[in-house]
Amino acid sequence: MRPIRIAIIGYGKIAADQHEPSIRGNPRLELAASSSRSGKGPKPAFTDWREMLRSVDGLEAVAITTPPKPRYEIARECLAAGLHVLLEKPPCATLSEIEDLACLADARQRTLFATWHARHNAAVPAAAQALAGQQIESMEIKWHEDVRKWHPGQTWIWDAGGFGVFDPGINALSIATAIFPGSLFVAGAKLTVPKGAQTPIAADIVLESAESCGDLACSLDWRRTEGEEWTIRTRTATGSEVLLTEGGARLFVDGTEQPVSGIGEYPDIYRRFVELIDERRSDVDVRPLRLVADCLLVGTSETVEPIDV
Amino acid sequence: MRPIRIAIIGYGKIAADQHEPSIRGNPRLELAASSSRSGKGPKPAFTDWREMLRSVDGLEAVAITTPPKPRYEIARECLAAGLHVLLEKPPCATLSEIEDLACLADARQRTLFATWHARHNAAVPAAAQALAGQQIESMEIKWHEDVRKWHPGQTWIWDAGGFGVFDPGINALSIATAIFPGSLFVAGAKLTVPKGAQTPIAADIVLESAESCGDLACSLDWRRTEGEEWTIRTRTATGSEVLLTEGGARLFVDGTEQPVSGIGEYPDIYRRFVELIDERRSDVDVRPLRLVADCLLVGTSETVEPIDV
Repeated sequence: MRPIRIAIIGYGKIAADQHEPSIRGNPRLELAASSSRSGKGPKPAFTDWREMLRSVDGLEAVAITTPPKPRYEIARECLAAGLHVLLEKPPCATLSEIEDLACLADARQRTLFATWHARHNAAVPAAAQALAGQQIESMEIKWHEDVRKWHPGQTWIWDAGGFGVFDPGINALSIATAIFPGSLFVAGAKLTVPKGAQTPIAADIVLESAESCGDLACSLDWRRTEGEEWTIRTRTATGSEVLLTEGGARLFVDGTEQPVSGIGEYPDIYRRFVELIDERRSDVDVRPLRLVADCLLVGTSETVEPIDV
Repeated sequence: MRPIRIAIIGYGKIAADQHEPSIRGNPRLELAASSSRSGKGPKPAFTDWREMLRSVDGLEAVAITTPPKPRYEIARECLAAGLHVLLEKPPCATLSEIEDLACLADARQRTLFATWHARHNAAVPAAAQALAGQQIESMEIKWHEDVRKWHPGQTWIWDAGGFGVFDPGINALSIATAIFPGSLFVAGAKLTVPKGAQTPIAADIVLESAESCGDLACSLDWRRTEGEEWTIRTRTATGSEVLLTEGGARLFVDGTEQPVSGIGEYPDIYRRFVELIDERRSDVDVRPLRLVADCLLVGTSETVEPIDV
């Protein structure tokens, strides 16, 4: 079987670290080209993605790993050109954009895959299985990390559309929506915004669900210099505890670690992309981005002292 | 034909002014009961809507005119009880809630109608018809009014989830999405928030669309004590101007007022609700609320002096 020829648009750090090796490691895919503003990337490397689309023969798919803002326009033209499209998270800058792309992919009968990489940890489907059909007593999400360690010098995270603490936090929401046995809603949110910034450094979110009468809490915090953690602790009505740690990499049920094995987040993303293309289907789950928007719709903001990163 | 027995949940000013007379004026509907916290409303009048659902014989539909926050829970139980549901605008406090209700209505095969009353001005479909199939040169939305005149003493408009200037502004967006011949997206937004408030008093929104290369601007402002206006001015690539004024009540094409006639916003809402029930369909257009959420996702906020209302 001839491999699917795919190009990377927006070749940068995440593309070099994750997308390129995952594509090269998948025998069903062939990395055909790349584009980036610098023109550095797997050859042939372009600085203009439109020129790349015109120049590369037999291109069938693209992975778009630019920042969120330009993704809509790029994806729209790629789908219109008959290409299958994979999007890094978050899929677009706005909900209207990703909903429009989903309609367009449907109309063009092409695969659109809005990826949420954290969901591709092997422990995540295992946790979902452990919680399936359960009544939930409580859920406690803690996504606590040091912004200075993970985003040194990246001032764009504080700009409008930069997502702030929701940039990592949307990973937590992508896992929560994948494992929780029911729909999750935002009842309230307290956003903490540094003076001079447009995006929050911390968010305390109260969630609710028809499948739970207990506390469903999500704490996102970029101010933890010690004791960083990325955990989701869920207790069922029957007294069982399902704990995901390390951002979804490890699973504990009632204190006992569960053996899980997988091929890795990004290799699994590309395995799934090929599967979707084969099945002529799309996978566009907007719920994590929608929950972030809902936090902004119902949340309160409090301004705190400025931060340097 | 036996009329459809309908009850009003959240009977207050908008229900008394608009919903009740529109229901009574529609021969296909029969006002069967009402509920409100005060218990004041058309008889039998309840203080507990759940008791109303249990007590009223042959109830087939409800109109929910409470504030946005409790609507989801009420609508969910009403749909589960097999009732058709009409929602005032905005349909819910969050996008996740209204999307869930749409799924539930579909599963229960009941009609859910998320209304946008401003769209039911007779001039709005006439404007849509004038713009259909046109390339758009520019669109200028101005929704400028005096918050002290329209919301005296209503402090909740400044609280989290209170929408601020988006409360009237979402009417403008509901018209714009109905008349614009293509999809609209938020490219940027500047939100002006009074100190101590959680919601904006003004919003300058830059819209964009694949169907237009020109300026698409939306200015919402609650600080206009003189010269209030609620206008949408659209110019087509062929040089024609389509102007809606007075919140969508009057239509001018190239300066000439166009004769339009209709039965009125709320009577038309109930005409449409009956039609949807007859056709066993729902009408849930989340775009206006999604555009507000998108403004919050990509917008910048600026704090200005506090305001008393």
